[in-house]
Amino acid sequence: MEVQFPAIAPRNQEASEQTRQHVDQLTKPLGSLGRLEELAVELAGMTGETFPVVTPPGVLVFAADHGVAAEGVSAYPQEVTAQMLLNLVNGGAGINVFARQIGAIQKFIDVGVAVEVEAPGIIKRRIKAGSGNMLKEAAMSADEAQRALAIGIEMAGQIIDEGAKLLIVGEVGIGNTTASSAILAALTGADPDEIVGRGTGLDDAGWQRKKAVVREALALHRPDADRPLDVLAKVGGLEIGAMAGAMIGAAARRVPVLLDGFIATVAALLAVRLAPGVADYLIAGHRSQEPGHTYVLNVLGKQPLLDLNLRLGEGSGAAVAFSIVEASARMVREMATFAQAGVSDR
Amino acid sequence: MEVQFPAIAPRNQEASEQTRQHVDQLTKPLGSLGRLEELAVELAGMTGETFPVVTPPGVLVFAADHGVAAEGVSAYPQEVTAQMLLNLVNGGAGINVFARQIGAIQKFIDVGVAVEVEAPGIIKRRIKAGSGNMLKEAAMSADEAQRALAIGIEMAGQIIDEGAKLLIVGEVGIGNTTASSAILAALTGADPDEIVGRGTGLDDAGWQRKKAVVREALALHRPDADRPLDVLAKVGGLEIGAMAGAMIGAAARRVPVLLDGFIATVAALLAVRLAPGVADYLIAGHRSQEPGHTYVLNVLGKQPLLDLNLRLGEGSGAAVAFSIVEASARMVREMATFAQAGVSDR
Repeated sequence: MEVQFPAIAPRNQEASEQTRQHVDQLTKPLGSLGRLEELAVELAGMTGETFPVVTPPGVLVFAADHGVAAEGVSAYPQEVTAQMLLNLVNGGAGINVFARQIGAIQKFIDVGVAVEVEAPGIIKRRIKAGSGNMLKEAAMSADEAQRALAIGIEMAGQIIDEGAKLLIVGEVGIGNTTASSAILAALTGADPDEIVGRGTGLDDAGWQRKKAVVREALALHRPDADRPLDVLAKVGGLEIGAMAGAMIGAAARRVPVLLDGFIATVAALLAVRLAPGVADYLIAGHRSQEPGHTYVLNVLGKQPLLDLNLRLGEGSGAAVAFSIVEASARMVREMATFAQAGVSDR
Repeated sequence: MEVQFPAIAPRNQEASEQTRQHVDQLTKPLGSLGRLEELAVELAGMTGETFPVVTPPGVLVFAADHGVAAEGVSAYPQEVTAQMLLNLVNGGAGINVFARQIGAIQKFIDVGVAVEVEAPGIIKRRIKAGSGNMLKEAAMSADEAQRALAIGIEMAGQIIDEGAKLLIVGEVGIGNTTASSAILAALTGADPDEIVGRGTGLDDAGWQRKKAVVREALALHRPDADRPLDVLAKVGGLEIGAMAGAMIGAAARRVPVLLDGFIATVAALLAVRLAPGVADYLIAGHRSQEPGHTYVLNVLGKQPLLDLNLRLGEGSGAAVAFSIVEASARMVREMATFAQAGVSDR
């Protein structure tokens, strides 16, 4: 199969300009709502609406396992991926809590957990039982990579059809900061020493091992930075491909994407390399503790809204940041203008 | 009159410790929710509850005028204070929008607007028709300063009786960044050049004038840093006194106070100097663009949750930051533990 990427429109400059003019008439000193004002102008450009709406948001969490987990690159055993998927559909994970707080539509998709689990609420789009160990083989075939992207596009379309006005894309997958580091290094030439972090909590020995694994995998596969699909297939992850696809799908529907941490932002970079128009639809939710996150945010030229030392993943940091985006949209729609309120504009 | 300050209990260390232990059992890598975890432990200490509740929050906005506005220290004319008070009770101001978003109880109190205005929803506690011009006289008498504090304590008690579980204290008052700068310089010895900012948007000439006004007022009155009530009376503001009182009142009820920007944080410093126990109940909501804000946050030893270049006042930045505090409290109450979810704890 070959995925046909949907067309992505650039930001609507006219809507942005109208929103900027409206914001300047609201009852506040010019520019005094800082980043909220900039966000409003960006949301208008993305959605094409002068009075943008971002509620309800949608949260897609993709779950998959990683063959590279066998190399001891995570503080947790592989079975945690499936256990966390069950926790997600039972509503007990961090992302569930924050998604409820913001009234989000939530979907949880198994794209390749190693041992299949059954529970109501798990959407099954299993590509295979975990990616291959990148130290020994490609993480997936080119065809599997295409399928991961297509599933992401499909799920974004579904949640948007159900009403989501902004998309948060999260993941669970033991070993996926290793895959994300490898993707980032492959796409940008970054030195693994600079971008590989401790993930869920590696000790020093584990951290050194993880850096070595990324270096060896890159040396073995020599992924081609100019062919992002090749990078995804060789050193990626099934859920990371689906995440990138979901971002492409959202951008094609003019739906803003609020980025979570390291893994989601690497998926965003992959999406941008596959479909450059996606860049116009990305908002950085927060800066995580993973060193590679700051690196990839800089590559994308995005300033995060929050900096709270979060590193949980699942989309949780983006869900916490969502209230800021909502505040921006509400500001445009609900604040009175100087004329409406009879307040002197100097 | 002389205000009797209510007693303030220190943080409950046992509740904090229990919350810390519970948070470490939740289904997430240890420490991976960063600042949210620290906040949860602090909230437990403040409220004395292992599973702290912060909803609904309460928002008190105090309005008053400043005689020093006659010196051209603001980009806006004095009548804007009364106009904004009407905008507040009509629900069109920034704080109204963000307070609705977080489901806050809202109260708007006239403690001394220059020209009295009438509208449903304005709580009248007028001390006088604006403070005196600090370049010519004391802003208020010692008795008036005491009354401002007492009104703040009263209003905090009222909104807490109505159910508020966390307090946000905001203000409107043309000229009040000048008064706040003078209070801050008087209490800490800070150089006005370091801490006086452009407020609502002064040009360079206005900014220089504002610095000179603060310097002259301090030289004229020589407020005594060891007598915070003297500082409030000589170079303060009626609403700033009420804000400090409200924070004392909240702390005495074990209700956390989420700080807005420069003016609110100066009011917090005043409250701490009057009643040191208040410090245990303060959370810094955001870092504003006003240079004095970073200065006073450092004096209080508080790290803000947000840094979004906000400088609107009214309590608006704290209201935007509230969702972070709510996320922290929900994390404690709603996330599953490893045992509950059957997830391997390594």
